Amino acid sequence: MKSILMVGQSNMAGRGFLTAVPPILNDHLRMLRNGRWQQLAEPVNVDREVAGVGLAPAFAQAWSADHPTETLGLIPCAEGGSALAEWAPDAPLMRHAISEAHFAQETSEIIAILWHQGENDSLDHHYRTYQTQLTHTLTHLRTALNLPAVPIILGGLPAFLGQHGFGLSATEAPQIDALIRQTAAELPQAYFVTAADLTANPDGIHLNAPSQRRFGIRYYQAFHQRADVLAPLADEAQRVAALTTHPLTAAETLYLQSKRFALGQTTFDEFMAAVQASRSGEADA
Amino acid sequence: MKSILMVGQSNMAGRGFLTAVPPILNDHLRMLRNGRWQQLAEPVNVDREVAGVGLAPAFAQAWSADHPTETLGLIPCAEGGSALAEWAPDAPLMRHAISEAHFAQETSEIIAILWHQGENDSLDHHYRTYQTQLTHTLTHLRTALNLPAVPIILGGLPAFLGQHGFGLSATEAPQIDALIRQTAAELPQAYFVTAADLTANPDGIHLNAPSQRRFGIRYYQAFHQRADVLAPLADEAQRVAALTTHPLTAAETLYLQSKRFALGQTTFDEFMAAVQASRSGEADA
Repeated sequence: MKSILMVGQSNMAGRGFLTAVPPILNDHLRMLRNGRWQQLAEPVNVDREVAGVGLAPAFAQAWSADHPTETLGLIPCAEGGSALAEWAPDAPLMRHAISEAHFAQETSEIIAILWHQGENDSLDHHYRTYQTQLTHTLTHLRTALNLPAVPIILGGLPAFLGQHGFGLSATEAPQIDALIRQTAAELPQAYFVTAADLTANPDGIHLNAPSQRRFGIRYYQAFHQRADVLAPLADEAQRVAALTTHPLTAAETLYLQSKRFALGQTTFDEFMAAVQASRSGEADA
Repeated sequence: MKSILMVGQSNMAGRGFLTAVPPILNDHLRMLRNGRWQQLAEPVNVDREVAGVGLAPAFAQAWSADHPTETLGLIPCAEGGSALAEWAPDAPLMRHAISEAHFAQETSEIIAILWHQGENDSLDHHYRTYQTQLTHTLTHLRTALNLPAVPIILGGLPAFLGQHGFGLSATEAPQIDALIRQTAAELPQAYFVTAADLTANPDGIHLNAPSQRRFGIRYYQAFHQRADVLAPLADEAQRVAALTTHPLTAAETLYLQSKRFALGQTTFDEFMAAVQASRSGEADA
């Protein structure tokens, strides 16, 4: 199977509200838990109690549509509120991400690194050293994973930063955004994705759930085309809608039924009836 | 700071419904995330989408009441549905748990291992080799953590297993329960905690949230007394109630306000008013 490493801060982890978009359910998608693969379910990157919808599930679902017979796993290592300095080679976040990635590499091939970070460096003139540090961090990741040419997709910073709520202090976001783009331009096999026109949660710093779906489509477009995405895609809305319109497979239906039963939302008889229906569906297929 | 390793299967991870008990909030408690410590919030052990209330937060809260100036961190490594064979020394779950524990040991002293497992071995005569395997697994953990005498608390299996829902197949739970108790008796510094009188979720296999609170108190009693807990404690209900009756500190209140703001449940003005109130509370203290 293939896999994807998720690194950066909260907008990579995801803070979109889980109830604001239809869930992504696909029995070809996995996430790393305790060093092993499990069925993907959001929130994937549970760094905090408030973890929610991130961009990676939309990326994965779009990839899956183009690779219907293959399996993709997400390796969640993003950490809310982390400054770039906390991703230095010797820092715990970096060492932990590499450790998680090594577990994933026992059973999968990492085909891309998805990176989003910068809000916590959009103040106090951090931009002076940002590009050097970012290049160092990303190069170290490639070296540690023994993947010197693995594609890296870097998202830009949204325009709503610096204006209100938790985003207020991020006054130098435009400078950091430009440096992320510049880093992508200078680092081989690295691609920039604009955050233009994306929308915040009420907190003023986190991308809302619909925007995370759009951002994930843009990340996938950059990966698929091996090219920067410098403007919103013309067909973004349709591609987001297509993420969740396919009919559920028998296995996906069974996953949902198991979840509902585990949460006390259906009876055992209803659950067993669903299992039987799922099995006869498989027999028919 | 001190820390606690959580290992085993779903009833160690926790599947109690989050809305069924008051939350545990304590700024002296932490959980490991991405190799670092964060404020404890439930669910702590997010192995699955349905992760919920486990026993470890109640254990931690009871410990904190006895050590009010100290900090305790939980290291969540339990994995739903895992059979004992999946905890063999070379298996990914074991290697991953050791890796997580090593990150925790960079900044903390592990003072206990909390173990709960057995539902997935309560069938097909797994009891024939269970005690040998369990002793081997726990001894390996101690060796790998370089903690040869660290206390290990082992919970027994609830009596509701083998009867309905997801618990139906666990027909040999009484045999496994006896072997867990026997293992604790024969392994040095290992203590057994009964699951007597605890109650299931509607799924017939997972301890419900109130029972997880009680189980956590029993685990702490075994740790504190360095002795088996072979029957429900006489004052269990009062001790569970005491877990969540203390007034919140300024930092705990601020954590709750930040969470509500991040989830869009309060406005920025309300949040900032709470920050100001919290600061003046601290100045008063």
